[in-house]
Amino acid sequence: MATTRIPPGETLEPALRDLAQALGAGNVLLDEDTLAAYRDPFQPPAWDDYRASAVVTPHSVEEIQAVVAIANRHRLPLWTVGQGRNNGYGGAAPRVKGSVIVSLREMNRVLEINEDLGYAEVEPGVRWFDLYEELRARGSRLWLSCADLGWGSVIGNSLDNGVTYLPYGTDFTAPCGFEVVLASGEVMRTGMGAMPGNRSWHIYKRGLGPVLDPLFIQSNYGIVTKMGLWLMPQPACYMPIWIRAWRDDDLGPLVDTFRALMLDRTIEGVPQIINTLDMAAMVSARSDWYDGDGPIPDSRIDEIAAELELGRWIMRLALYGDEPVVDHRFAKLKAAFERIPGVEVRGTKQDPERVAELTQPAELVQAGVPNLEINRMVAWYGGEEGGHIGFSPVAPLTGADALALRDLLRGLVETKANLDYQAAILIINPRAMVHVTMVMFDTKNEAQTRQAYDACRLLVTEAAKHGYGEYRAHLDFMDLAAEQYSFGDHAYRRFCETIKGAVDPNGILSPGRHGIWPPAD
Amino acid sequence: MATTRIPPGETLEPALRDLAQALGAGNVLLDEDTLAAYRDPFQPPAWDDYRASAVVTPHSVEEIQAVVAIANRHRLPLWTVGQGRNNGYGGAAPRVKGSVIVSLREMNRVLEINEDLGYAEVEPGVRWFDLYEELRARGSRLWLSCADLGWGSVIGNSLDNGVTYLPYGTDFTAPCGFEVVLASGEVMRTGMGAMPGNRSWHIYKRGLGPVLDPLFIQSNYGIVTKMGLWLMPQPACYMPIWIRAWRDDDLGPLVDTFRALMLDRTIEGVPQIINTLDMAAMVSARSDWYDGDGPIPDSRIDEIAAELELGRWIMRLALYGDEPVVDHRFAKLKAAFERIPGVEVRGTKQDPERVAELTQPAELVQAGVPNLEINRMVAWYGGEEGGHIGFSPVAPLTGADALALRDLLRGLVETKANLDYQAAILIINPRAMVHVTMVMFDTKNEAQTRQAYDACRLLVTEAAKHGYGEYRAHLDFMDLAAEQYSFGDHAYRRFCETIKGAVDPNGILSPGRHGIWPPAD
Repeated sequence: MATTRIPPGETLEPALRDLAQALGAGNVLLDEDTLAAYRDPFQPPAWDDYRASAVVTPHSVEEIQAVVAIANRHRLPLWTVGQGRNNGYGGAAPRVKGSVIVSLREMNRVLEINEDLGYAEVEPGVRWFDLYEELRARGSRLWLSCADLGWGSVIGNSLDNGVTYLPYGTDFTAPCGFEVVLASGEVMRTGMGAMPGNRSWHIYKRGLGPVLDPLFIQSNYGIVTKMGLWLMPQPACYMPIWIRAWRDDDLGPLVDTFRALMLDRTIEGVPQIINTLDMAAMVSARSDWYDGDGPIPDSRIDEIAAELELGRWIMRLALYGDEPVVDHRFAKLKAAFERIPGVEVRGTKQDPERVAELTQPAELVQAGVPNLEINRMVAWYGGEEGGHIGFSPVAPLTGADALALRDLLRGLVETKANLDYQAAILIINPRAMVHVTMVMFDTKNEAQTRQAYDACRLLVTEAAKHGYGEYRAHLDFMDLAAEQYSFGDHAYRRFCETIKGAVDPNGILSPGRHGIWPPAD
Repeated sequence: MATTRIPPGETLEPALRDLAQALGAGNVLLDEDTLAAYRDPFQPPAWDDYRASAVVTPHSVEEIQAVVAIANRHRLPLWTVGQGRNNGYGGAAPRVKGSVIVSLREMNRVLEINEDLGYAEVEPGVRWFDLYEELRARGSRLWLSCADLGWGSVIGNSLDNGVTYLPYGTDFTAPCGFEVVLASGEVMRTGMGAMPGNRSWHIYKRGLGPVLDPLFIQSNYGIVTKMGLWLMPQPACYMPIWIRAWRDDDLGPLVDTFRALMLDRTIEGVPQIINTLDMAAMVSARSDWYDGDGPIPDSRIDEIAAELELGRWIMRLALYGDEPVVDHRFAKLKAAFERIPGVEVRGTKQDPERVAELTQPAELVQAGVPNLEINRMVAWYGGEEGGHIGFSPVAPLTGADALALRDLLRGLVETKANLDYQAAILIINPRAMVHVTMVMFDTKNEAQTRQAYDACRLLVTEAAKHGYGEYRAHLDFMDLAAEQYSFGDHAYRRFCETIKGAVDPNGILSPGRHGIWPPAD
């Protein structure tokens, strides 16, 4: 579908010449190493459905405008990435084979940190690591709600609905106020930023007239070149908490308990509920435990749960605030969870001044200290060449939904992909969870990888039959995932594509992203 | 500008015949009483710049689709209102003279209240009063973050960025998941609602692909027919708080103190900082205090402040939560504010089970009990025929900005309109405030009313020169207010109008709303 709609084909050579002229030849990269670095890192090398033609690295808004002008002239599909770390969902690879990747890694300035009003303004190449380092370098007392993996772009991650874990990680709390290069080449600022000299751009979420920031999430209507990000004052007290449950069916009452405690704001931020095998992957390899061919059976999972002292479900969360508030809340949540037989709650206050010295990755992340430790988990099957797909449906935060999704997803992953069921349930707000199924495989094993991809396609349609839709879709089944949002004979997609056709008539910006295509010629 | 773009003129009669056929003659209202009821209630009767031709009252989504189809056929401009209580900003009146008002007052069902997940689904005719009554009738333990005036439409108020005061009043927290009739006549559901049978429509703020809910705020891209609204579980403890300051310049340190206490989440919800004359208007008439012609002088304001025991600034806020948390927070905020010399803080816990018995209007509203008491204030100048315009710029939540805006706005209101400066500063989130200047006048006094309108136009441009933009603009200066958002040679407006042209090519839906016009013929 994609390649027939916007064929780069013969337009490529002259377009690349124009790009080299505009950006300098050193910023138009065609070598195999670069193209390999911008592949989906978890697809076997022989699969080239999403292979880019080139990578361009603009250094300024003006250079992005030049790239857009050239793309319009040649009807060249672009695919924009901040850092291109969308791993598990396709990495940096474009939806349309042959697209030119616009990598914004060189636009990596932290443009402002406003200590009083608690926000930063960043460019799209700024990683969680970079913003964190800049905060430390300035002696800031602001904490960053960051993603599990610190190598991602702050803007890129936010625009993919990537999850962060502090209180500002809930829904779309942190981002505020964008600058966008449109397909027309114009530079637009959203919200209060649309008024010259208005200092409320990054502090007020709306503006006068339609509110546009969220329109640029998971979309292809523009290239975001600046973003405001809210930062939280360092709390007086920080307490990371671990909760452990020993029975698989404890998941139901656990989720119901979370809902009550999040609705009444005892717990803030974004807790995770992680199953044994997903957590085990962070500290060990599958071969340490099992050498059978099919999924690890329950009896063996129980043994792993015991030996690693993880339980069948282990939960991470944290409390932030004044000490009396944290003490009250901890006592309350401990009592509530321990009403479930066998459940254990452990919380330890950590000095907020010294969180960088913590060693447990989740305890670092929940204090806004980015790291890469969690990435170890992809080695479960394949060692250094392990890969994964994230299959991530949204569901109401009820125990009944949690158990139903577990049964559905585990059943399909085990029987259709012949793989282990590894899950991290993210409680994205007090009413909803994202059930991230980490479908892991050995990328050297092409048959296993194919089974994983095929199973994920089946998960999309089976989950949708039960009313669960993905929050973010892998390139390989983006269209299939979008297809499930079919209310009113696909009125949503049609509306989005009508906008696409109007604001990007040549369809140059990330065509096909999350199922939104430009109009056919 | 407006009437030349979309002339209802000769198309009106046949369009009205079609509408009567589709809805029944009883739902196409042309009588003077109805048209008067849908005027801007604060404009003198002789002013008819925003006079509607008719009011239609559909009873269902299908009837709205029929109205839209007829409007497309006749190129008839529609103007949609929920209840039409947009008072201070133009009431129910349309931007384009001769438009047909689509009043959704008859679509007034509360379609769902989900007690476990804490949300309601409502139609656009549902008022704050109606939703509150329905919650009580069902014995719900959910609290509603409501507006100061309970007669407004929940959907209409939300779509105008109307402010509510509980913790869910911050930014756009409460609304989640829309159903929209598009100009094409299609029915679209946003977010997870775009998937048939998906129960996460009203609990997850995003979806797969571009996030559309905020696009329908202050816009004219569709007619919202259903909305989810988050409700807060009744807190264990409710404590309304009043803070009083005696010196006009206390405003600076007061605002800085609020910022610190809101950023660290000691204070949640949306506090108000109200000046003497605005608060005095809720309990008295101007003639009780002063019979001079010009603005009331400072010396007299000090006397009113003392006699009514209001101070020069009086602040309303509330704490919600478990009792130990409320106790800790109250002690902390009391100590912080009372560091400002002369400032007094008073908080009284109220039984959450019995908030309906409270008598102070703000204490009711902050507990989610809608009422109309605050409306008394418009009688300041004109008695029952008093009127007001809300001039409401957004600013960073700093003491310096608060003082600068006070000086600017007071100066212009007093010298240009010869009126009293009456202000309610709404702390809309921990970083931003909306400085609502209530420009009050006697609608029987046409010269005074004209002065008020003229002064407000001047306020728009003068505030913009200092980088302050309106959060919501009165019909009479909507275009002027939108004009100030001119970054990139009006890139924002151009982008919005490009979308408008694509999704509503005949320009039938609320043309001109907040400065967004359909493309010229």
